[in-house]
Amino acid sequence: MKKILAVTGIRSEFDILLPVLKTLKRNFDVKLVVCGTHLSNWHGNTYESIEQEGFEIADRIDYLLMTNRKTQRSKGLGTLISSLTQTVEREMPNFILYVGDREEAIASSIVGNYLDILTAHIGGGDPVYGNADDPIRFACSELSHIHFSTAQEYANNLINLGEEPKRVVFTGNPALKNIKDTPELSMKDLENSLGISLKKYLVLLKHPLSSEKESAYDQMKITMESLARFCEENSYNVVGIYPNSDPGSYDILKAIDEYKENRSFKFFKTLPRLTFVNLMRNADALIGNSSMGILEAPFYKLPVINVGARQKGRLNAGNVDFVDYDHKNIIEALHKAVFDETYKENIRNLKNPYGDGSADLQISEFLGSLDINDSSWYIKKKIFDQ
Amino acid sequence: MKKILAVTGIRSEFDILLPVLKTLKRNFDVKLVVCGTHLSNWHGNTYESIEQEGFEIADRIDYLLMTNRKTQRSKGLGTLISSLTQTVEREMPNFILYVGDREEAIASSIVGNYLDILTAHIGGGDPVYGNADDPIRFACSELSHIHFSTAQEYANNLINLGEEPKRVVFTGNPALKNIKDTPELSMKDLENSLGISLKKYLVLLKHPLSSEKESAYDQMKITMESLARFCEENSYNVVGIYPNSDPGSYDILKAIDEYKENRSFKFFKTLPRLTFVNLMRNADALIGNSSMGILEAPFYKLPVINVGARQKGRLNAGNVDFVDYDHKNIIEALHKAVFDETYKENIRNLKNPYGDGSADLQISEFLGSLDINDSSWYIKKKIFDQ
Amino acid sequence: MKKILAVTGIRSEFDILLPVLKTLKRNFDVKLVVCGTHLSNWHGNTYESIEQEGFEIADRIDYLLMTNRKTQRSKGLGTLISSLTQTVEREMPNFILYVGDREEAIASSIVGNYLDILTAHIGGGDPVYGNADDPIRFACSELSHIHFSTAQEYANNLINLGEEPKRVVFTGNPALKNIKDTPELSMKDLENSLGISLKKYLVLLKHPLSSEKESAYDQMKITMESLARFCEENSYNVVGIYPNSDPGSYDILKAIDEYKENRSFKFFKTLPRLTFVNLMRNADALIGNSSMGILEAPFYKLPVINVGARQKGRLNAGNVDFVDYDHKNIIEALHKAVFDETYKENIRNLKNPYGDGSADLQISEFLGSLDINDSSWYIKKKIFDQ
Amino acid sequence: MKKILAVTGIRSEFDILLPVLKTLKRNFDVKLVVCGTHLSNWHGNTYESIEQEGFEIADRIDYLLMTNRKTQRSKGLGTLISSLTQTVEREMPNFILYVGDREEAIASSIVGNYLDILTAHIGGGDPVYGNADDPIRFACSELSHIHFSTAQEYANNLINLGEEPKRVVFTGNPALKNIKDTPELSMKDLENSLGISLKKYLVLLKHPLSSEKESAYDQMKITMESLARFCEENSYNVVGIYPNSDPGSYDILKAIDEYKENRSFKFFKTLPRLTFVNLMRNADALIGNSSMGILEAPFYKLPVINVGARQKGRLNAGNVDFVDYDHKNIIEALHKAVFDETYKENIRNLKNPYGDGSADLQISEFLGSLDINDSSWYIKKKIFDQ
Repeated sequence: MKKILAVTGIRSEFDILLPVLKTLKRNFDVKLVVCGTHLSNWHGNTYESIEQEGFEIADRIDYLLMTNRKTQRSKGLGTLISSLTQTVEREMPNFILYVGDREEAIASSIVGNYLDILTAHIGGGDPVYGNADDPIRFACSELSHIHFSTAQEYANNLINLGEEPKRVVFTGNPALKNIKDTPELSMKDLENSLGISLKKYLVLLKHPLSSEKESAYDQMKITMESLARFCEENSYNVVGIYPNSDPGSYDILKAIDEYKENRSFKFFKTLPRLTFVNLMRNADALIGNSSMGILEAPFYKLPVINVGARQKGRLNAGNVDFVDYDHKNIIEALHKAVFDETYKENIRNLKNPYGDGSADLQISEFLGSLDINDSSWYIKKKIFDQ
Repeated sequence: MKKILAVTGIRSEFDILLPVLKTLKRNFDVKLVVCGTHLSNWHGNTYESIEQEGFEIADRIDYLLMTNRKTQRSKGLGTLISSLTQTVEREMPNFILYVGDREEAIASSIVGNYLDILTAHIGGGDPVYGNADDPIRFACSELSHIHFSTAQEYANNLINLGEEPKRVVFTGNPALKNIKDTPELSMKDLENSLGISLKKYLVLLKHPLSSEKESAYDQMKITMESLARFCEENSYNVVGIYPNSDPGSYDILKAIDEYKENRSFKFFKTLPRLTFVNLMRNADALIGNSSMGILEAPFYKLPVINVGARQKGRLNAGNVDFVDYDHKNIIEALHKAVFDETYKENIRNLKNPYGDGSADLQISEFLGSLDINDSSWYIKKKIFDQ
Repeated sequence: MKKILAVTGIRSEFDILLPVLKTLKRNFDVKLVVCGTHLSNWHGNTYESIEQEGFEIADRIDYLLMTNRKTQRSKGLGTLISSLTQTVEREMPNFILYVGDREEAIASSIVGNYLDILTAHIGGGDPVYGNADDPIRFACSELSHIHFSTAQEYANNLINLGEEPKRVVFTGNPALKNIKDTPELSMKDLENSLGISLKKYLVLLKHPLSSEKESAYDQMKITMESLARFCEENSYNVVGIYPNSDPGSYDILKAIDEYKENRSFKFFKTLPRLTFVNLMRNADALIGNSSMGILEAPFYKLPVINVGARQKGRLNAGNVDFVDYDHKNIIEALHKAVFDETYKENIRNLKNPYGDGSADLQISEFLGSLDINDSSWYIKKKIFDQ
Repeated sequence: MKKILAVTGIRSEFDILLPVLKTLKRNFDVKLVVCGTHLSNWHGNTYESIEQEGFEIADRIDYLLMTNRKTQRSKGLGTLISSLTQTVEREMPNFILYVGDREEAIASSIVGNYLDILTAHIGGGDPVYGNADDPIRFACSELSHIHFSTAQEYANNLINLGEEPKRVVFTGNPALKNIKDTPELSMKDLENSLGISLKKYLVLLKHPLSSEKESAYDQMKITMESLARFCEENSYNVVGIYPNSDPGSYDILKAIDEYKENRSFKFFKTLPRLTFVNLMRNADALIGNSSMGILEAPFYKLPVINVGARQKGRLNAGNVDFVDYDHKNIIEALHKAVFDETYKENIRNLKNPYGDGSADLQISEFLGSLDINDSSWYIKKKIFDQ
């Protein structure tokens, strides 16, 4: 039985990994390395729910430093790379599997490269720009042996990078399966699980952008104030989730804290999937700058107001409205998303470029049939004139 | 005055950096971070000569682990990334400058990316493959803000990767200046500086290849034995330099050690530049698998026998003969390089694709005129349809 | 001029270091390494105020991991030791100076030991027990070359450990100078600087105890509830400061958070010294388990209710009442501290065993006159039959 | 079944651990963490033989840095502490077991202290001084929960330190069992296993001393030259073992290398136990500064010439002659050890203070009967007036 070591560091990315791991477990020996925000109380100790899913934990790697300075990420990454090497040498998997553009992805790519262990990367080829994560994603693609891309256009980008075509597979976004498989909750049950009453509401997911870290507080303040005005005028509520742990997150939390007396807002550190998916299903719009707006909202046919430069460059299925940090523009975009029937109709009819929710099966099949004794998988060549 | 922090970890790569740093010192505040093999007695403590060049040392970073296992490199890299972040935050340079495909290059790229400091990489776009270093080089290109490439063909490869053209400059190989500026030694003085007498001789530079680490000893043994036979038949000597510190180097040293009684061979841990350049100038051929055969030997018009797969994929100026690990093939290639007058004449007339030795000036001018307040330099976008 | 490198990681310990550093600056080249909670937003970014004091910062070392698991401390300490070595080799001070029993103290002791640099430890010989910090303090004493002890009894303990007498100096607690030098604020100004109005109040400082981490939440809950009852019955207020960053602190914060609607309580992340000292001067009692109750409260002649096992074993000047986690006992102790006139009179007349506030001068004189070329300072011998 | 995690980093200390581990395996779940020089080719890759002993390896931790600078040890120790914490959290043993005064001992003590896991230290209380390792040994004693001491005098020292008597057990040196259990080889077989012929010979074991690192080369040179003269005059041979990895070892190797043409000397990186023990049994004397001269040579009734300050302060069973670095003194001491029949007779009759070779059984019994749920074992108190 082939052995797979998956590496995960943050809730948002584990949502993508989870359906894949569940499917892989049928035919592979699967172990998990749990890192970063999963191990942080301040981020809801999500490692506990991962361990309850029944996966075997190979190691728990702490590297998330308690500072808002930019040093946080590269110092932490160094620790992660060294620690993960210890784990990988002991476990000696056939594949290391990871997602996206964060510390876990680049650390896994690097360790697999130096230890000559095949690495499989979900989510390469996405040309989003503006955040420190974005060039990391491409660096991961240069180092990874196998690419599972979430859109055909992104697969093509990897070929343009000179990647050998046999390494590139368009599978779609695995997280869609996740949504498909989540049972429907009644509004009553949703309210109970949140502990609040809900009528018309928006969901807010806002992360810091490394290149604009100094403005994180002001940007969040504008976003919050615009939402406060819109909610008051239109009797809407906002359900928000706390930001990730990147530098600038502290400033976002500060801005959130200033609205703690405002009844329109209700924030959660993290939410169980059942609650979250149903929250999205019943929302009127998503606002903020989470990748979920680009990658998952099309599946929900949900209008998205993406505030600021994060997610710029990504494939827009047609449901995302990019606006800058300006009260008037944000409020107008909220109006369009919530009240403009033509716009909403278009979104209900969009064609989702992020696949059909079968990524888990495709990944399992591909890794299952790959000949791990074929040395050509281990040595990467560039082909620039494809 | 703009501030530049250069990062160096190994003699071979400092040879490329040195002429650039000397030129930069005229107009920039230049500091050095000294790492890795430079700090190792087993590799000749080359940091001492660097410090004697008069550069200010920002920090000394130890990360080279004493093991021959593959874990050596990624565990060490983790330490380097964390340690270098500490240095960079304190120094706050305008640019971080580095060369090639080793730990220092990827560590610097990563730190610059997360700390929003401009990074300048010398040597990107080279499609060599087969070694763990090779994908690292491309990962560095994805992360670096500025690329100084050593051949026009390599610059084109970077454009193909989607790099914005304004970031890519063909400067040629800076190390050529180094050779140009080295005074000529008479054979007598060369012999004195080496402490041996020389007539007809070859130079041997052989490093381990990560994807073939397990064969490192056997491969070196075949190389040594072929050279031993050739030397005996043709009254030749071999002057060798010890390998770098990568996993497998221990095995190469073991094979070398078995020939310590053989008078045809003379090995050095490291050599001063004056001695080394004149050794190359008077050699009849270079054998092994050093990048020097590809990148610098054309400047010397020197025939190269590249044994094995290392350096595969690189731009061959016409002076490199690739042979596999086979006594007969190696000895034939040695004969051609040393005795085939037509072949030697062609090499004497080759056109060097690695520039004219003015890279240092071009780099200095480019960094000098770059507007560090222009935010477009800090945010990398992909352009895939150039 | 002799060079001193001081290492600091937390506000409470910097309070002890600060008066010493100010005095040392007159005759020594003083640099600071700033670490740990000083660099954490969650702990008030106290490094900013340190840098504003005008000290030169040698390096900023991040090691505080964002988790509530016990792994936090030893993983972080590993990072600190490696990082600090880089700093110390570059700075090459004549002395490394540090305080107490936390990561900075043991890291500095270890680095000085291996690098053969003299280390001076403030606060050794204190037999407090029950916390993970406590054995660390004695380990620091075994490694340190010079001991500045805060009580004569503690100096005697160090001699009992076999330390050579010439290394042991009773100086008293340097932080007392700090208090002496702080100007008096009127109650009006104190209230302004806190942003609240105050009449009769207690100060609360409560940290987790590693050996009872699992009970941290319950213990704090009992403490808070007892205070809530006492305050309501007697019209008292509580001014609290957040706990340090040790594992369990998250649980303490959780208990605090549950009383955020209770008007009797007001919590601060951290307070400027001027405010804090005057807060203590005007308080009716200190409650919790901070070392301040033992070490500084005698100077204020302030009654202390020490709840739980932290600080057990320490020299009690007579002002500290140890109680366990029990509502009745805590409330009774509060009554005694606040209303029992005989008890209060005794405390007003106590003799402070922690010195007269001249520790800074004694330390400066000792280090100034020590012959750093005398090799006997560098080689520690044990003398067990003193 | 109680679980024990043993931590080992160097051959000399594993010799002490091995008989204990073999005995523990009968009644405990035993796992090993293998670190440091065990993983270094330059030190004979001794981890391979450990793994062949059939112990389960919990993790392999690389931390040994390739430099001769003093930074090597504390930087490496930092890495070890962080890495070992990862292992300990995963394994969650009931006891961590370790020996002596090196990085593994202090790292294990620290990790156990912060993670509240019982730690058992073999070899505390030994007042040797002059090396960076020596204060580390006492720091380990302050942190460790259980002490197995190799001499009654050393146990007494621990009580003097204020350790609670129930934590201190005099067991003797476990390595003696090792020697007892090693079969006798004929001289013929010994010669075969060494690959040399032997008649009268001395054994040389010489390590660097941190406080005299700068003199390491000169000191070894004097030792080698004295031995060369003695051997030539008296037809003796010297069988030497390479030094450990501490800073200065490179210089010792350099001095050894200068005698590589001298037929009197034969050096080995490391030797199998069977060979080594029989080498000691048949030697006429041991020279150098290894702890073996103090701790094990009494068992062999072997005269020892201890050159220089290393081992100063230790309990001398009467077989050790301390001499300084002086040709005349060394040669005289060699004469006494080899030719002075009265002196030799005294040594044959000495009483060994290091126990009777039953330490393994005593340790197993103590750990087996200890109640791991008794919280008093976890909280250390100082008792200064015993």
